Amino acid sequence: MEIYEFGQYLIKEAGEFVRSRMLEDFQVDSKLNPNDLVTDVDRETETFIYDRIHEMYPDHHIIGEEGHGTDIEDTSGVLWIVDPIDGTLNFVHQLQNFAISIGVYIDGKPGCGLILDVMNDTLYRAEAGKGAYKDDVRLDSIGNTELATSLVSLNPNWVIKDRIGSAFASVVEDARSTRSYGSAALDLAYTATGIVSATLFFRLHPWDYAAGMIIIDEVGGRTTNLLGEEIDILHKDSVLAANQSLHEELVQYFAHDEAFIEAHRHVHGEKK
Amino acid sequence: MEIYEFGQYLIKEAGEFVRSRMLEDFQVDSKLNPNDLVTDVDRETETFIYDRIHEMYPDHHIIGEEGHGTDIEDTSGVLWIVDPIDGTLNFVHQLQNFAISIGVYIDGKPGCGLILDVMNDTLYRAEAGKGAYKDDVRLDSIGNTELATSLVSLNPNWVIKDRIGSAFASVVEDARSTRSYGSAALDLAYTATGIVSATLFFRLHPWDYAAGMIIIDEVGGRTTNLLGEEIDILHKDSVLAANQSLHEELVQYFAHDEAFIEAHRHVHGEKK
Repeated sequence: MEIYEFGQYLIKEAGEFVRSRMLEDFQVDSKLNPNDLVTDVDRETETFIYDRIHEMYPDHHIIGEEGHGTDIEDTSGVLWIVDPIDGTLNFVHQLQNFAISIGVYIDGKPGCGLILDVMNDTLYRAEAGKGAYKDDVRLDSIGNTELATSLVSLNPNWVIKDRIGSAFASVVEDARSTRSYGSAALDLAYTATGIVSATLFFRLHPWDYAAGMIIIDEVGGRTTNLLGEEIDILHKDSVLAANQSLHEELVQYFAHDEAFIEAHRHVHGEKK
Repeated sequence: MEIYEFGQYLIKEAGEFVRSRMLEDFQVDSKLNPNDLVTDVDRETETFIYDRIHEMYPDHHIIGEEGHGTDIEDTSGVLWIVDPIDGTLNFVHQLQNFAISIGVYIDGKPGCGLILDVMNDTLYRAEAGKGAYKDDVRLDSIGNTELATSLVSLNPNWVIKDRIGSAFASVVEDARSTRSYGSAALDLAYTATGIVSATLFFRLHPWDYAAGMIIIDEVGGRTTNLLGEEIDILHKDSVLAANQSLHEELVQYFAHDEAFIEAHRHVHGEKK
């Protein structure tokens, strides 16, 4: 079985695991607080995914949010980057609007990206060079838009932060409107499907963006950090994903703001 | 037929009208820009709803976003308050996540509230004193929460505004996290179903909140303006809807902020 096919099978199976795990626990304890459940489900789902990849491909590497692969320092070979529950607060408060995200990189190059909206059982997926799909529907390329006529997703949390806030505030001011959905993986999927035209984050980890970047690529979009620099798949960074022209327009809000740049370097370091 | 039953029938029929109207136009013109469609659909849907209410209940009054009832100055008799498309930008950009909202008030008192998520065909509904439902599932009362452990929905647009922004920014800072969905009616429905624990707006019109207020009431929540004052159903105002204790907590962010109060009075006037 090819990696991409196996990945699709695996993520659907993991989604089924999460859904039944939730149902089971809420049936056993109707007063269960989702706060107490999410940590367990997060860990168990990562192990579920890890075990199956490891069994199928013993020589592949795996990085996961819940602690697998913390020792991985280069991207040689096949690397699976896994977020078992992306959008933890949505899981806890909404029991919906969270995702499993799996990105596969081969010698550091995009292989395939898979994002499953778990409760809707909707799969966003792409194989490098072969287009992106929402379930079985091929996604169109995303057209160019201007910020003034675009919806963008970003969390107001960044708008109120010292030093970095004013750049985000200018984006909010100039955009047609902003949305916040609470799952980075789904925000990237929504950017690929045109629900929003761009999505911006000050800080994401590889498991948050690894799958989404590949899907965005396959619909003709562009993903870099907020300064317009290429993202290194092994490290946390800021993330800006958008159609080509909007990406260019949005980078200008950040790449010339000295306070922002300084804060960004402080948090994410200097690009080599 | 009782008003509440008729309202449910009517809003479902109106939803079907919107969906088929969209499909029809996009079939005729595959390059159609939703920007060009939304104004027509908005107007036609309001007329569709107006005509049916008028035919069934010739002596009822109707206020609609698209211009019906602008001369209505008191709340005597039966008053229908209608938003044919709430979440216009979502309609335009997403072709989903918008709602039809219908609130019925009888001599100024809550009668029933209906919010239809059009594309999902999900109906949030309540009759005063008789509980609230999502489709056919009765909604539980919403429990008290604290801001620090709550999701709240608000648009970042308010956070960046002079004079009023700092109060909203403090809410963003102290909340567990914030969400922005882009439809006031759905935000109110989400507050009633616990997807968020509160929703805040600096400026809404009666057709945005008329239905939602009744649904929030029926799950034990509270809706006032941001200063904690009762909302007059005939006028635009700020809106704060939440569970009881969170409502009380959130009012403190606005009701003691002199700059905010002054801006609020400037936009919404003084309560009698």
